[in-house]
Amino acid sequence: MSETLVLDRLDDWRRSHDCGALRASDVGSEVCLMGWAQFRRDHGGLIFIDLRDRGGLTQVVFCPEGSAEALERAHVLRTEYVLAVKGRVRPRPEGMANPGMPTGEIEVEITEFKLLNTAATPPFPIEDRIDASELLRLKYRYLDLRRPKLAGNLILRHHAVQSIRRYLDGLGFLEVETPVLTRSTPEGARDFLVPSRINNGSFYALPQSPQLFKQLLMMSGFDRYYQVVKCFRDEDLRADRQPEFTQVDIEMSFVDEEQIMGMAENMVRTMFKEAMDIALPDVFPRMTYADAIRDYGLDKPDVRFGLKLVDVTEVVRGSQFQVFAKAELVKGIRVAGGAALSRKEIDDLTEFVKIYGAKGLAWIKIKEGEWQSPFAKFLSDEERAGLAEAFGLEVGDIVFFQAGAAEMVNTALGYLRIQLGERFSLIPEGSFAPVWVTDFPLLEYDPEAKRFAAKHHPFTAPQSGHLEKLAEAPGQALSRAYDLVLNGNEIGGGSIRIHDRATQKAMFAALGIEDQEAEDKFGFLLKALEFGAPPHGGIAFGLDRLIMILAGAKSIRDVIAFPKTQKAMCLLTDAPAGVSAGQLRELGIKLRSRDKDKDKA
Amino acid sequence: MSETLVLDRLDDWRRSHDCGALRASDVGSEVCLMGWAQFRRDHGGLIFIDLRDRGGLTQVVFCPEGSAEALERAHVLRTEYVLAVKGRVRPRPEGMANPGMPTGEIEVEITEFKLLNTAATPPFPIEDRIDASELLRLKYRYLDLRRPKLAGNLILRHHAVQSIRRYLDGLGFLEVETPVLTRSTPEGARDFLVPSRINNGSFYALPQSPQLFKQLLMMSGFDRYYQVVKCFRDEDLRADRQPEFTQVDIEMSFVDEEQIMGMAENMVRTMFKEAMDIALPDVFPRMTYADAIRDYGLDKPDVRFGLKLVDVTEVVRGSQFQVFAKAELVKGIRVAGGAALSRKEIDDLTEFVKIYGAKGLAWIKIKEGEWQSPFAKFLSDEERAGLAEAFGLEVGDIVFFQAGAAEMVNTALGYLRIQLGERFSLIPEGSFAPVWVTDFPLLEYDPEAKRFAAKHHPFTAPQSGHLEKLAEAPGQALSRAYDLVLNGNEIGGGSIRIHDRATQKAMFAALGIEDQEAEDKFGFLLKALEFGAPPHGGIAFGLDRLIMILAGAKSIRDVIAFPKTQKAMCLLTDAPAGVSAGQLRELGIKLRSRDKDKDKA
Repeated sequence: MSETLVLDRLDDWRRSHDCGALRASDVGSEVCLMGWAQFRRDHGGLIFIDLRDRGGLTQVVFCPEGSAEALERAHVLRTEYVLAVKGRVRPRPEGMANPGMPTGEIEVEITEFKLLNTAATPPFPIEDRIDASELLRLKYRYLDLRRPKLAGNLILRHHAVQSIRRYLDGLGFLEVETPVLTRSTPEGARDFLVPSRINNGSFYALPQSPQLFKQLLMMSGFDRYYQVVKCFRDEDLRADRQPEFTQVDIEMSFVDEEQIMGMAENMVRTMFKEAMDIALPDVFPRMTYADAIRDYGLDKPDVRFGLKLVDVTEVVRGSQFQVFAKAELVKGIRVAGGAALSRKEIDDLTEFVKIYGAKGLAWIKIKEGEWQSPFAKFLSDEERAGLAEAFGLEVGDIVFFQAGAAEMVNTALGYLRIQLGERFSLIPEGSFAPVWVTDFPLLEYDPEAKRFAAKHHPFTAPQSGHLEKLAEAPGQALSRAYDLVLNGNEIGGGSIRIHDRATQKAMFAALGIEDQEAEDKFGFLLKALEFGAPPHGGIAFGLDRLIMILAGAKSIRDVIAFPKTQKAMCLLTDAPAGVSAGQLRELGIKLRSRDKDKDKA
Repeated sequence: MSETLVLDRLDDWRRSHDCGALRASDVGSEVCLMGWAQFRRDHGGLIFIDLRDRGGLTQVVFCPEGSAEALERAHVLRTEYVLAVKGRVRPRPEGMANPGMPTGEIEVEITEFKLLNTAATPPFPIEDRIDASELLRLKYRYLDLRRPKLAGNLILRHHAVQSIRRYLDGLGFLEVETPVLTRSTPEGARDFLVPSRINNGSFYALPQSPQLFKQLLMMSGFDRYYQVVKCFRDEDLRADRQPEFTQVDIEMSFVDEEQIMGMAENMVRTMFKEAMDIALPDVFPRMTYADAIRDYGLDKPDVRFGLKLVDVTEVVRGSQFQVFAKAELVKGIRVAGGAALSRKEIDDLTEFVKIYGAKGLAWIKIKEGEWQSPFAKFLSDEERAGLAEAFGLEVGDIVFFQAGAAEMVNTALGYLRIQLGERFSLIPEGSFAPVWVTDFPLLEYDPEAKRFAAKHHPFTAPQSGHLEKLAEAPGQALSRAYDLVLNGNEIGGGSIRIHDRATQKAMFAALGIEDQEAEDKFGFLLKALEFGAPPHGGIAFGLDRLIMILAGAKSIRDVIAFPKTQKAMCLLTDAPAGVSAGQLRELGIKLRSRDKDKDKA
């Protein structure tokens, strides 16, 4: 096995170039390269190896002209062995140049080499076209990260973050670190807790965001703050979430929405340009929350394509079709050419919308001379005419409907719209469509808790005069919050904050947080608001998702070096893991036995 | 109370300048400033306010020429109220210019102002000369951070980190984020644990450093990695430690010590120059671990002053003075002019060395014609002559001795030396003396566990041929580790790592880690070493301490925005805190009752 080979020491060998650097103009140079044997081929008694490092690939040749002794020793070399080579750059023989490779005009004739390490056969080949399961690749993440595509995502991430920092530094933002071991924060998701050994029975919480610390920094007069910072949410992981994620967190003093949004959109524009040479629009369009819901069903509209939702509630009110007759809201989406969808495809879409609480999916295919539909027979001529006009129906179209509670209708159709956009290839490849969503409701109704809760968080300022609306029409009060949406993903969100104690107390009261609870949870903030807080606001970007979009990756796991699975496990290190009884004792905790739990339940 | 005042809205007012920007050349301009009322004085019917923001102070004047209405309204203004003002820049009256203030030639005649917030009287004055207790200042940290000195430390920290990033980015280092929720790491201190809700009974550990992840990144071919990253140690907090601290973490592939040390010292030199305009030496001196212990007693020698330790073991071997006679090691420090120390001062120094395990402190004062000392009478003439020569004794000197086990002697005298350097003002103000310490022992003896443990960590490479010494003379094997020491503080440390599996296994064996334990704890590393790890090494800097030295601060708490106390508590937010029974139940843990503990103990 490989370990029986004796490895050479690096001694004082030093690289002269990386493996992507050499060109025809280097012919004749003596060079020293180090890297991995990507590929070996033996031909005419010679050994050719493509040597790989972060910079690229260079073909090196073991041959008698270079060193017969090196050629002899080179027979042990295998894929992924680690080498240091010295040699002379020479042109590739006539007709052997490889124009698809930056170093393709040259090769290096080896005069001397060191075997720095051997390698067992990897469990999957190190190449971009790969069909190994993601679970296997996560276990051997260090090998998966050798693939140029995955490594490229992380290099892109580095450059994107550099660009963001440069931009913010240039505007006088200060990066200030805030605590990781802190107090439960008010974002509303579940906290990760850290038992304290020194203060048994007490727990730190890992921050869901540095929200209150950045507000306190504004109260300290730091004026412009940013941080690229890990945040934590102990949530049940949906498709593409991570328990720890990275946020670009920003706060400014003495500003209103315009200045924050202007700064933020310019930051994103600059980053796209610098990191990927992608030009985003000079001015990002804006849309109110109400308009986003009306036209797209979602508050993160993907505006790269049409298929807008159409409200036909009034058209079908009192219809013979009972599903429509008394519904709070009836909306539809018309898809040109959609009448070609098969029954199976429609069934799949029906299953899809059920995820969002829909009971089914009503549809009408517009055929020559007839409307094909399970329920068209219940529609009056007047209703048909109304629908035809509302949707601008033509032969070959399909229309999908949802009817019922407004939120369900919008959500189900909003996500159906995305599905249809993909199914009908309506989303232009490589296009980027940012849009600001503004004028969010201050509160949203939580049907489980049967009360209103803050839509963003309880520190978001109400719009001028809207605090007063909270008492009689809490659902209609608007906030000074804004989200930046890109291709249907919320990539950033923020708000102007409440900066005076009276408003903050009124807000807590509106949320049904009693004085004592407010004092217990946020007493330090209320206290801080007594001492001259400046007007301030900010924004936070989800870096992982932003990079994912920038890189054209399918999952945020592809832009994180060591991600966790949907079960929040690290397959590489096997975290989380059991710990010793002694450790638990020191922390003043013990495991709850499952049986006992059942007894109590 | 202040809340009864109605606050103005910012509306579309925008700052034209910060409060440190205006000069004589701006006279006549219309400006808009925003900030805090630092100081108010009424004079001749006018109201003068020094308005403060991050940029500095500007004197603004409420006067009838500017706006009689603003002057009238200005009577409510108090210290720390937040204002937005509009007005005209005018020269200060003849003889009233303040040359000590960058904006001292001008003042702003107010035409209009908004009251943005009121402020209660702060619990301590916002000024650099402050005698409020640190506990009070930590509770009101947001007010303490308004003090220019403390804010200045954090601004310096920002610039220092910017400089470091620029330097590393320029050399092609990639910043890669590593997990915070991870597996117990091998630094040897206690881990903070995070119970997993999804995997009840399992725990994440917060990283003590990203050591293994950065090594894995080298195995992935990332070549040059860095990260400015939070690390965590659940230790009993000595004088100036924090449970979470920030590390500048660096790793390189295909390099030896020289390249890492060269890169690192240039990084520190560049940072000192860019952030504070301090010139460090062009080449940092180097010292072996053995020499550092010999001359300074400590492996973090403060080389800003002399007072080197002198080994006189042989001179006094077999002395009548029993303490010296058979001691493993006898060393002394000569202090020129030290004979003037009082008995009380010597008693205090004696108490001091007892912290480090000394039983007492032997001393001799060299007086005209006699040696004053509790034990000089036991010394033979030959011994006296030997000591006089070894120390180069002169009248007026004092010599302090320690005798006994080598480690105690060196440690006690090493710290005594620092005390003496301070007492005798031998440490030049504002001087910076970096020194590399090299050739560390690979292992160190742990007297409690009665076995050898890794001096740095078990991934540190042995020097060439020293792996073979481990079996017969484990204390003599040297490692490829290096520390960077500045003014007696270890600011950075690193090593060349073991990059082949056979050596790593041999190292685990030498540390008494059995195969199964090695597999359980570090199986993923051993596995990774099978697939072609490149030679690599790195270094990590303790950022907090580095900034503390750079800023001339007395404590790392003064360079951290929201630090914790020695009891690991945040007095601002009251973390850690109790949590609900429901939270604990979800995490599958419960509190250990103290009484039960006693029963079991």
